[in-house]
Amino acid sequence: MLRSEVNTLLTQTGPRTPMGELFRQYWIPALLAEELPEDDCPPVRVKLLSERLIAFRDSQGRYGLIDEFCAHRGVSLWFGRNEQSGLRCAYHGWKYDVTGACLEIPSEPAGGTFHRRVKLTSYPMVKVGDVLWTHMGDSTRRPALPEFEFALVAPDQTFISKRWQECNWLQALEGGIDSSHVSWLHSGGLMSDPLFKGSKGNDYNLNDRKPFFEVADADGGLFIGARRNAENGEFYWRITPWIMPSFTMVPPRGGHPMHGHFWIPIDDHNCWTYSFDYHPVRALTASELQAMREGHGVHSANIPGMYRPLANRDNDYLMDRTAQRRGETFSGVKGIAMQDASLQESMGPIVDRTKEQLVTTDAGIIKTRHKLRNAAIALRDHGTVPPGIEPAHQRVRSAAVVVPCESSFFDSCHEALRAAPGMPPASV
Amino acid sequence: MLRSEVNTLLTQTGPRTPMGELFRQYWIPALLAEELPEDDCPPVRVKLLSERLIAFRDSQGRYGLIDEFCAHRGVSLWFGRNEQSGLRCAYHGWKYDVTGACLEIPSEPAGGTFHRRVKLTSYPMVKVGDVLWTHMGDSTRRPALPEFEFALVAPDQTFISKRWQECNWLQALEGGIDSSHVSWLHSGGLMSDPLFKGSKGNDYNLNDRKPFFEVADADGGLFIGARRNAENGEFYWRITPWIMPSFTMVPPRGGHPMHGHFWIPIDDHNCWTYSFDYHPVRALTASELQAMREGHGVHSANIPGMYRPLANRDNDYLMDRTAQRRGETFSGVKGIAMQDASLQESMGPIVDRTKEQLVTTDAGIIKTRHKLRNAAIALRDHGTVPPGIEPAHQRVRSAAVVVPCESSFFDSCHEALRAAPGMPPASV
Amino acid sequence: MLRSEVNTLLTQTGPRTPMGELFRQYWIPALLAEELPEDDCPPVRVKLLSERLIAFRDSQGRYGLIDEFCAHRGVSLWFGRNEQSGLRCAYHGWKYDVTGACLEIPSEPAGGTFHRRVKLTSYPMVKVGDVLWTHMGDSTRRPALPEFEFALVAPDQTFISKRWQECNWLQALEGGIDSSHVSWLHSGGLMSDPLFKGSKGNDYNLNDRKPFFEVADADGGLFIGARRNAENGEFYWRITPWIMPSFTMVPPRGGHPMHGHFWIPIDDHNCWTYSFDYHPVRALTASELQAMREGHGVHSANIPGMYRPLANRDNDYLMDRTAQRRGETFSGVKGIAMQDASLQESMGPIVDRTKEQLVTTDAGIIKTRHKLRNAAIALRDHGTVPPGIEPAHQRVRSAAVVVPCESSFFDSCHEALRAAPGMPPASV
Repeated sequence: MLRSEVNTLLTQTGPRTPMGELFRQYWIPALLAEELPEDDCPPVRVKLLSERLIAFRDSQGRYGLIDEFCAHRGVSLWFGRNEQSGLRCAYHGWKYDVTGACLEIPSEPAGGTFHRRVKLTSYPMVKVGDVLWTHMGDSTRRPALPEFEFALVAPDQTFISKRWQECNWLQALEGGIDSSHVSWLHSGGLMSDPLFKGSKGNDYNLNDRKPFFEVADADGGLFIGARRNAENGEFYWRITPWIMPSFTMVPPRGGHPMHGHFWIPIDDHNCWTYSFDYHPVRALTASELQAMREGHGVHSANIPGMYRPLANRDNDYLMDRTAQRRGETFSGVKGIAMQDASLQESMGPIVDRTKEQLVTTDAGIIKTRHKLRNAAIALRDHGTVPPGIEPAHQRVRSAAVVVPCESSFFDSCHEALRAAPGMPPASV
Repeated sequence: MLRSEVNTLLTQTGPRTPMGELFRQYWIPALLAEELPEDDCPPVRVKLLSERLIAFRDSQGRYGLIDEFCAHRGVSLWFGRNEQSGLRCAYHGWKYDVTGACLEIPSEPAGGTFHRRVKLTSYPMVKVGDVLWTHMGDSTRRPALPEFEFALVAPDQTFISKRWQECNWLQALEGGIDSSHVSWLHSGGLMSDPLFKGSKGNDYNLNDRKPFFEVADADGGLFIGARRNAENGEFYWRITPWIMPSFTMVPPRGGHPMHGHFWIPIDDHNCWTYSFDYHPVRALTASELQAMREGHGVHSANIPGMYRPLANRDNDYLMDRTAQRRGETFSGVKGIAMQDASLQESMGPIVDRTKEQLVTTDAGIIKTRHKLRNAAIALRDHGTVPPGIEPAHQRVRSAAVVVPCESSFFDSCHEALRAAPGMPPASV
Repeated sequence: MLRSEVNTLLTQTGPRTPMGELFRQYWIPALLAEELPEDDCPPVRVKLLSERLIAFRDSQGRYGLIDEFCAHRGVSLWFGRNEQSGLRCAYHGWKYDVTGACLEIPSEPAGGTFHRRVKLTSYPMVKVGDVLWTHMGDSTRRPALPEFEFALVAPDQTFISKRWQECNWLQALEGGIDSSHVSWLHSGGLMSDPLFKGSKGNDYNLNDRKPFFEVADADGGLFIGARRNAENGEFYWRITPWIMPSFTMVPPRGGHPMHGHFWIPIDDHNCWTYSFDYHPVRALTASELQAMREGHGVHSANIPGMYRPLANRDNDYLMDRTAQRRGETFSGVKGIAMQDASLQESMGPIVDRTKEQLVTTDAGIIKTRHKLRNAAIALRDHGTVPPGIEPAHQRVRSAAVVVPCESSFFDSCHEALRAAPGMPPASV
């Protein structure tokens, strides 16, 4: 249970909010690279942290992320012409470069310099992996580029998708670090999903539905360990890293690729869920890629041309009571991603955490909130640089291991939880 | 005309409002029995008095009406599994019984008792007739079950439907006790509707459009009498009972079944209209039942699988100006139910009663408001049990009679206004 | 840039606002005449200056514009029966005439006079040209009927359409007096639109994209002149009259008909855009009329049976990036009208003018706001009759001329800017 003011602190991410400022310390995903596929392609509207922006890629391949609205009279630059190394407003031809600088006000008298004083808000946008990242904070405190492993491996080893989720970012994130619900909500998917099924770990998940949680500090956030019984008195540990503010990884299964998420606030009632798969030491197979594109595993089947899931709140997530009754799905919703999203959205745009009743398996959620809150307050009150900004903090992995019962998960897995090029995942 | 604060008092029915508390003294319709057709069928979301609830029927046939959201982290139980005598949340498997008690938190350590302290808000739900009734008030003041005649007659003598109405409950109720508009709005329907046409009373309705109103107290509410001229100096009286808080009956016509309504607040801008037909002494005929299912009489043709009328505010109620011009319908809207609903919704979600100009034929409406207000205030200030709770108060009928002009309607009809098993209706 | 309170003053037009009161001094378009095509035709809902009204044409051809809601209990008169010289409410048959007077309350006792005290708000509605005009202000200050030339020429010389625009009236008007954007936003249309193409003026527009603005006072508003270079040291002037509060004319092109707009507030987030074409000295040709009906020139292609454009914000204005890239359209939106509307709507319902950065070509906009503000304050504080009410103020025309460089546009065009029957337009 949270006090109302803490719930507000953690869920509000607009301009000048403590949590919004915290997000602005980091490089965060702004778009998928596929959304700006070539030079001079159409600009894309994007809302991040309650701010309306326009993203574009200019004639020289430079990426821009600037205020959506022309400085002149406020027209949306989405209608603009992206050509000749700038984005030109469709109304009067004002032209901006990727830094938001106004290059030209063509109606002004020749030789005029007024345009030099016109500059739109802009943020850097950089491609690392298949993601375009932005840093929306103070440019003098801009950190080094992100080094999450999924974004650094060879292109044929990684895949990423995104979907619009109609709830606050925090309740989406909390689903991502909640290793307990897998045994219930995803019990069907563990057996049938092509990107999940067929691992020994799944059996442990389904046979021991009373996981014990232990949470260890990571440099950039937390390692959340969920322990279940294996054979011969050994323990099966699933370890979920959370790197601040909102990067999480799902513990892997057998030989399947690893996967995880970013949860990025659009505004306080909506977020982008980025979902990635990668394998540290091999290319993804054609059938794996096809399954990802079709919305299996952590991905969703989206409406063509949009990043909205086909199953969404307007159609009750295509609820199938027959499949539910037959046990093909536990909740009647198809697909692991939409099983999560449907329940998280059903809590309302911002769940009222003053009413919740947390239990022992919520230990990871409790520590995550605590750490977020402390970091936001330390930043606000003392300018303290929060964890997770250093690229070294980001080089983590999830792990799923079987270890003797006397071992601490953190000691046993210390190496496995580091992203090390060429090292296979620790996956049961 | 009402003062603004009185309009607010009468129209607000959410938690802790005086009128909401008044509604919570009564058994009110929560669902049609057909919505929970068998044991372990899918749970149903229902909003009543601005409170979001989930209704279900467990493996033993017990009905439950509980908080829609899981006590743990607030997920909607609509996604839950209804099986093995309880409703299990789809997220982590918490299981609730029909009383809202948490039976199991499967992730908790074996032998744990925390779940015993978890209990969701719940209300009793009981089937009487084809309706599932609930009492949302203090369980120590729970009244005896309802005894409205339509719910007590044999199943083949009664039919009930419901529809979503997009306005405040009070302006819907006020339509139900307004015997004056029949001569106008429903003038087409009186001649053509299979469940209305062909009675002598209709001729009186159409020939005398200046009804005189007399209102008498009933134990549970009011009897609202509308007098029109008949032949030979006699009077045709139509008497509409209103039983608190929102049960009304339409005066009958010839040999047709009797009918009436319940108007139940969903929230302050929406209500459920329950519409019933029954005959006290005979089974409904196949053609009557067919007409009711097709949306004739007081019923509406709904969108298949929903309780929303096919003709609704999003399609301008399928307005047909040609039929209006030809006089087939007075307002251009088809069907008696939707003629009422369309006009009531056209007033806006809550009509501004500070602007109305009431006339003599509004006598019943004025007294109804007065009685509602007094009851709500007496309950709030003194805990006074309001009228209409006693089953004896509910055993009323409407009547349509021709009596000598010197008689008072109440004296002449005293017997006819009592629901008496085996006694035919007083219907002209 | 405007201060926030000035932006509020200029954009709020509801009851008792200074700008709303200013609008209520004038005859403004309420409907197209085609919306009430014959006696006793269906009534039409219309919202003007944030007030909900019903328009009808009675059995004798009289036009009425009255409160949408019946005085009795607030039902919408849109469901009413328009017959026998009055509009009868569908609920209880109360009947109103075109002045809002209640003619009959049929349920009241014979000989009753209560209805004589019932009167709905009403405004006069008068047909001049193909427009039904209303005056929503004090009837003792009702001005003479409008004398805009488009409404006075013979019926075969004029055409008018309307469309719903989803933004505040002022940002729509500001587009109408902004002669600078033509060289950009409409550069494609100048070459291809059947009602625009093929004039010498278009070449000047496209060759000199740095117009110099000069603004002269008109009796009823302003003449906004935009000067571009022509040949031989001469100047091409385009002169846009703005007559208070919101009548504008586009400077003409070659032999094409003249055209212009009215921008009428529905409420503060929506306006009606009326768009007219006329030729002062000849009938419109069949092909011109066809082009207008198809949505060319200043007109829009609307959803059949509605006044909403086919290309609208719900479908991203049918954005065509291929046409944009090819240069067929500058913004990707088809049609001059929707090019304007799409950008104006993209600014948001009410653009935040505290953030704009105006330039020299915005001189007309700046003076227009100034004049509007002064007139609204003078009316509010001193009851001053604003400009543009006198019919003589309305007899203006736009002009497009080539004059020697030493001439002032106002002196050279003085005659051309007057609407003079039988006089051809000054059009290059």
